[in-house]
Amino acid sequence: MINRISTFVPILDWGRHYNRQTLASDTMAAVIVTIMLVPQSLAYAMLAGLPAKYGLYASILPLVVYAVFGTSRTLAVGPVAVASLMTASAAGTIAAQGSPDYVLAAVLLAILSGAMLLAMGIFRLGFLANFLSHPVISGFISASGILIAASQIKHILGISVSGDSLVEILTPLAMHAADINPYTLALGAGVLAFLYFVRLRLKHVLTALGMPAHAGDMVVKAGPVLAVVATIALASAFDLGAKGVALVGEIPQGLPALGFPQVDPAMLQDLAIPALLISLIGFVESVSVAQTLASKRRQRIVPDQELVALGAANIASSVSSGFPVTGGFARSVVNFDAGAQTPAAGIFTAAGIAVTALFFTPYLAALPQATLAATIIVAVLSLVDVKVLRRIWTYSKIDFIAMAATILGTLFIGVETGVVLGVVLSLVLHLYRTSTPHIAIVGNVPGSEHFRNVERHDVLTVPEILTVRVDESLYFANSRFLEDRIAALVAARPEVRHLVLMCSAVNAIDASALESLEEINHRLKDAGIMLHLSEVKGPVMDRLRKTDLLEQLTGKVFLSQYDAFRALCTSTASGAPDLIRPTGSIVVG
Amino acid sequence: MINRISTFVPILDWGRHYNRQTLASDTMAAVIVTIMLVPQSLAYAMLAGLPAKYGLYASILPLVVYAVFGTSRTLAVGPVAVASLMTASAAGTIAAQGSPDYVLAAVLLAILSGAMLLAMGIFRLGFLANFLSHPVISGFISASGILIAASQIKHILGISVSGDSLVEILTPLAMHAADINPYTLALGAGVLAFLYFVRLRLKHVLTALGMPAHAGDMVVKAGPVLAVVATIALASAFDLGAKGVALVGEIPQGLPALGFPQVDPAMLQDLAIPALLISLIGFVESVSVAQTLASKRRQRIVPDQELVALGAANIASSVSSGFPVTGGFARSVVNFDAGAQTPAAGIFTAAGIAVTALFFTPYLAALPQATLAATIIVAVLSLVDVKVLRRIWTYSKIDFIAMAATILGTLFIGVETGVVLGVVLSLVLHLYRTSTPHIAIVGNVPGSEHFRNVERHDVLTVPEILTVRVDESLYFANSRFLEDRIAALVAARPEVRHLVLMCSAVNAIDASALESLEEINHRLKDAGIMLHLSEVKGPVMDRLRKTDLLEQLTGKVFLSQYDAFRALCTSTASGAPDLIRPTGSIVVG
Repeated sequence: MINRISTFVPILDWGRHYNRQTLASDTMAAVIVTIMLVPQSLAYAMLAGLPAKYGLYASILPLVVYAVFGTSRTLAVGPVAVASLMTASAAGTIAAQGSPDYVLAAVLLAILSGAMLLAMGIFRLGFLANFLSHPVISGFISASGILIAASQIKHILGISVSGDSLVEILTPLAMHAADINPYTLALGAGVLAFLYFVRLRLKHVLTALGMPAHAGDMVVKAGPVLAVVATIALASAFDLGAKGVALVGEIPQGLPALGFPQVDPAMLQDLAIPALLISLIGFVESVSVAQTLASKRRQRIVPDQELVALGAANIASSVSSGFPVTGGFARSVVNFDAGAQTPAAGIFTAAGIAVTALFFTPYLAALPQATLAATIIVAVLSLVDVKVLRRIWTYSKIDFIAMAATILGTLFIGVETGVVLGVVLSLVLHLYRTSTPHIAIVGNVPGSEHFRNVERHDVLTVPEILTVRVDESLYFANSRFLEDRIAALVAARPEVRHLVLMCSAVNAIDASALESLEEINHRLKDAGIMLHLSEVKGPVMDRLRKTDLLEQLTGKVFLSQYDAFRALCTSTASGAPDLIRPTGSIVVG
Repeated sequence: MINRISTFVPILDWGRHYNRQTLASDTMAAVIVTIMLVPQSLAYAMLAGLPAKYGLYASILPLVVYAVFGTSRTLAVGPVAVASLMTASAAGTIAAQGSPDYVLAAVLLAILSGAMLLAMGIFRLGFLANFLSHPVISGFISASGILIAASQIKHILGISVSGDSLVEILTPLAMHAADINPYTLALGAGVLAFLYFVRLRLKHVLTALGMPAHAGDMVVKAGPVLAVVATIALASAFDLGAKGVALVGEIPQGLPALGFPQVDPAMLQDLAIPALLISLIGFVESVSVAQTLASKRRQRIVPDQELVALGAANIASSVSSGFPVTGGFARSVVNFDAGAQTPAAGIFTAAGIAVTALFFTPYLAALPQATLAATIIVAVLSLVDVKVLRRIWTYSKIDFIAMAATILGTLFIGVETGVVLGVVLSLVLHLYRTSTPHIAIVGNVPGSEHFRNVERHDVLTVPEILTVRVDESLYFANSRFLEDRIAALVAARPEVRHLVLMCSAVNAIDASALESLEEINHRLKDAGIMLHLSEVKGPVMDRLRKTDLLEQLTGKVFLSQYDAFRALCTSTASGAPDLIRPTGSIVVG
């Protein structure tokens, strides 16, 4: 019984084996992740267009809830860059940034997204995430990275502007160039330079100085924290706030009040699509990180249970006034590397953030926004993957089109349009690809039982017998193509009396394809041609037996193509088959 | 050169060989089709909610244009039942029946639909029709038949009501039962009974009386014409119009003025989706009829050229004030059976309708609408296929769900919603089905080179070597499933050192699946397991060679699964493989 419940509440499983050693490891990891998460949560709240406190609120309860329901031992959830950008985009269509409705929209997004994830988990609808192909996700993440980085430039320059698409973001920057605040620019550029130095060079320097690689990694990861501490000190010492440098400002001390947000049905409707996209993208990214980390220790992730856990975490975020959360890549890797053994590390991290919210927020008031912007820029530019464009171009033009459309749509129209465009295009292009499967006319390889493409090999054929091999499962997207193609092949060969459909690569035949086969059989019968099948797979044959196709079939079903060829050769007038050499001129399929 | 042009203008091809004999056959067929088409065109105009003359207008120019561009020798185009219903549904959302805007909407639908078909033909986008699976089309046609029949009951009863969904149509009928016109009812019921007698019994009677089967068929097809002539006579003799029987009324003599309709951009936008659906459904039905007839004479249909021809025909319809047209089933069969040899029969039919429009419309004024309603009911109820529901239920539950949703959506929400619901569901369900492919763990059949499912056969396996066969092409919808499944399989078998992916049923690997394979390779490496591939198909291997997967692969690519097994057995510690008998308890995939 405990075993069955623990499938849905994994904490019951790992909690029973919890001991002092795992406690020590988890606590150590939690301290490191907490220090990393504080500036991140403030930064992503800023990116989402929300006051800084909401970042902290989204980093407490969701972590505890994920620890109870999640199947990953090391995934660290909380606000992440892409979901924050999407939150800003969706909430921006509802109300102006800074208004109470804007905040409400962000909180509603979390509860909607949570409810959707939970429902997908309970009803086993995780397969919906399969609509998001790798090229679409990858293109979307890269484009989001560029968009986020561009949106942060204003904080580095000290200009107040806003916009959604790349053009909307960059145009006003050029127009307001005169408003640049020199102190902000100096500070922001300094932090940027420092963070890039830390990321690209510091490890080499430290390793050269004799520090172990692992410790070096940790120092590099602590770069943003150092920048935060240093710029708070600078801003306080030189009173930069009075010189026009935007600071985070006062963050109220204390924990969020718990309670469901006030629900506005009209707003919910407007937020439904963005919430679905945030859910699916967050889920895909989160499971991908979790799988990568779990496989290093041969642990197992259960995607459907992850939906439940992430759903519950988002509802928890909403209940505590937070915005959408999901598993973060950098954060989870730090958690893993720092030695987290169980999700308890997440609970301890939540405790760390709670302590920060209760006692340390006054120290964060003097933090310049430019510092946060610089940490965001450095973090998100690492998401931008230019090489993948070239790789996918080389591998598959169809996938490239879907990716390019996603990137361009995201950058120049908007984040939701970008994703939807990519999903629709990849579906259409998938249908297009499988709607014209490779179809080969095959003949017998002399001295063997093999059958190969007549255009590539010297094979034996008989004019009366046409054997066609279809390299695709037969379903609605290609069933009519098959009808058309067979009609064309037969119309061009008046001598044909037998058509054999070789089904070795046909993994399934759906109802549309079944109707097409019946139609093909019927039409061939009218034309005086018998239709035979060969090498039909077991599961496919099981289904066909439920229909009357096999009774209506003018020909037979042969176990192997060789059986078919031998039997039909003896029954035709021309007798012994002729050797056909490939001409290389006719292309089929 | 003529050959290349004639691909796009097939009349240049068959026109050159035209002779006196084909002229005689075509003329005979045209006379018969004209007699059949006159009442049909009036009936479908009524169904579309338009004055009768528009039915004639849609049956002249489109036929000529199709004859020039179409690849079918015998397809008879013109107004058809389902497209007329869809026209009524779409135009009804724009304006009230009887208003000038309603007529304009119908004419715009034709030009929009024509432009879409033409564009699909030119840009080779005919594959878009593949989105419409057989179960969705079949369900939609059946539901439309029921809806159309229900919508005509009011004409039989002599009541004036209107509505779109089944509930909207039937409820007011019951409420207005007191308004039934007894003359209309007697006439309508009489025609219905007569037409059913003709359809179901007359051929038996005629054959029993010694008439040849072919002639009997022709008499049966002439049933509606007899009913038209007889009820015109009745209505004139007894002045039924004065007794409240609705008549077709005066149809202006003459041909339509030619000219493009006045274009209203807002209206075009509202009509875009209906026009697309009318185009696709009309195209699918039309090509299906054309293929069936062509195969009887081993002729060839070129679907992309059919798009061009139907597109041009619809534009021609619009230019001559007509509404959407397509190839009609019954009409084409009559044309074929009557001996039509070339599309010239269509041109002669158009001439026949033009003559009717010029000279014979006064004779049609006394035609009771109830007669037309009865011919519509009898025609469309033959479209309703109840048996297919049972067949598809038995064959595939997934296809059944798509079909049932289409039928219920069409009947109870509306025609467009029904089709869209069906299309979306069949796509989602297709993704769902291929997203969880059959995955089998296989072992060597003793004494052979075959590999079979360990759960169905007595096979040899080695604990260190896990061989997995995936029965599906790998693409975005199942790539993450594969990742999850392999992670789970490996997590449950700590002894595994080699994983072989047997790719005999993998017809394609898209960019998403490639990334997943790289990820699987990477994760297995972290877990100390080598990944091997076996039986990769030629075209798939060609693509993989363009990537660095093969370099990064921790294991090898084996030509056959047997090669892989033999090579890996000698390299592992346990040596000789053990015989595994299927337990029947574990189900994989």
